[in-house]
Amino acid sequence: MVAPVPGLQRDRPIGVFDSGVGGLTVLAALEAALPGEEFLYLGDTARLPYGTKSPASVVRYATQCASALVERGVKALVVACNTAASAALDALAARFPGMPLIGVVEPGAAAAVAVSASGRIAVIGTEGTIRAGAYQRAIARLRPDARVTGIGCSVFVALAEEGWTDGPVVAQVAHRYLDPLFAGPAPPDALLLGCTHFPVLAAALGALVPPGVRLVDSAATTAQAVAALLAAGGCARRGRPGDVSRSRFLATDAPERFARVGSIFLGRPVAAGEVELIDV
Amino acid sequence: MVAPVPGLQRDRPIGVFDSGVGGLTVLAALEAALPGEEFLYLGDTARLPYGTKSPASVVRYATQCASALVERGVKALVVACNTAASAALDALAARFPGMPLIGVVEPGAAAAVAVSASGRIAVIGTEGTIRAGAYQRAIARLRPDARVTGIGCSVFVALAEEGWTDGPVVAQVAHRYLDPLFAGPAPPDALLLGCTHFPVLAAALGALVPPGVRLVDSAATTAQAVAALLAAGGCARRGRPGDVSRSRFLATDAPERFARVGSIFLGRPVAAGEVELIDV
Repeated sequence: MVAPVPGLQRDRPIGVFDSGVGGLTVLAALEAALPGEEFLYLGDTARLPYGTKSPASVVRYATQCASALVERGVKALVVACNTAASAALDALAARFPGMPLIGVVEPGAAAAVAVSASGRIAVIGTEGTIRAGAYQRAIARLRPDARVTGIGCSVFVALAEEGWTDGPVVAQVAHRYLDPLFAGPAPPDALLLGCTHFPVLAAALGALVPPGVRLVDSAATTAQAVAALLAAGGCARRGRPGDVSRSRFLATDAPERFARVGSIFLGRPVAAGEVELIDV
Repeated sequence: MVAPVPGLQRDRPIGVFDSGVGGLTVLAALEAALPGEEFLYLGDTARLPYGTKSPASVVRYATQCASALVERGVKALVVACNTAASAALDALAARFPGMPLIGVVEPGAAAAVAVSASGRIAVIGTEGTIRAGAYQRAIARLRPDARVTGIGCSVFVALAEEGWTDGPVVAQVAHRYLDPLFAGPAPPDALLLGCTHFPVLAAALGALVPPGVRLVDSAATTAQAVAALLAAGGCARRGRPGDVSRSRFLATDAPERFARVGSIFLGRPVAAGEVELIDV
């Protein structure tokens, strides 16, 4: 996190970006937590997924996405992509000094530490996120004696994008990924959904993990962190009763697919005409 | 297909490209069919997958990949990516006149028409391939009375990349995608694997489809078409008994991942040191 600059216009939108549509689960939480705010969401659909790209490429792409949002006058940046937040947050802080900046990793790590009694925490995410190790490091900073197990679960991403959010396929895939995790003598008591695609699978996963295991995701805690940061910096919009948040959508490719698949993640319909195609 | 230019040096490599590693199933068939030839394989891993990108983006990416191979002196181009072959073959033929050029779609369509007695053919592929409709059109050109059903099966791609090529997960996913296809009164008798990732799932899929349904893929027939085209143009290398083909690998991102996941598709180990990182 970077401290906000007082004097930034309250009425500017909050910029949110992801490699594609998964970050819309974070946008949904932001809309719920910050009524009255306006959001500008960028999905870098021309280059998704980031999870299988090299760290150097992810830093370059994230910088281009953030630049596109900063040029459009946002008052804060939310990196709603676990891979980009893992690999590029420091580079973005250096590139945009003074811009309030929050990734999904630290809020997610804080949520996991808060619910885990034993300190044994499992993190599931894309291959890139798990290999980057940012969640593991963020949890260790908050609770040095934590024992963190990371598992790359790429197939969950495909299931979420296909809209297969429950049923026997999800159950079989979840058993294959997660059963070894809970089979040992000291299993985790918290399962952190370290990928913005995974909240749509949360109900199905919650039914499959052993009793007492808490599922946490970054969306709600990231939204709370953004609210706190804006309030601290004096650049939160002054909401009025009955205000609703508004969002606009940018994509670097295929607006029709963004709208169709994005509706799964945002939890409400998005029309293709609402999505502006841009180059970054 | 474009006619080859006589006089192109026989000893030059054959260029093969794909959005990533799936095209290595085609390369494996080419190596088997054309001993003595040398291959230069480019995986555009920085921008994979193509299957969810717009046609305009796919044409641009495919042209850049082909240019990189032509600059390196290849004597023929094989588009070992169903999405690129569906969207960009005409553009490549116009951009590289005289260069022998083969995509995977027409050979795959020919293979399906050859094995189907009823003319009822199912094609499975990425969302992009099925929506582009190139297989459907190629089959209709060969057999106008064919009845073609296309199904986008994105989750199969994730399973293949994860190396989950059999077992209960593949079975559940296959049932969900394919059971409706075979439930009706006039089911297909040929299942065309219209994605270069799918040959690694062929054994598992073959065990699940009803008896009498033939599975076909583009890899072997594409290799035969390349051999015929080179022979017709007089630019096949003159093999000697005991020759083995050689391949070199280029990738636009993450050579380590290319080597690791690519080994699944090529069917033999690829070392990260064998993969050259390039910009296109």
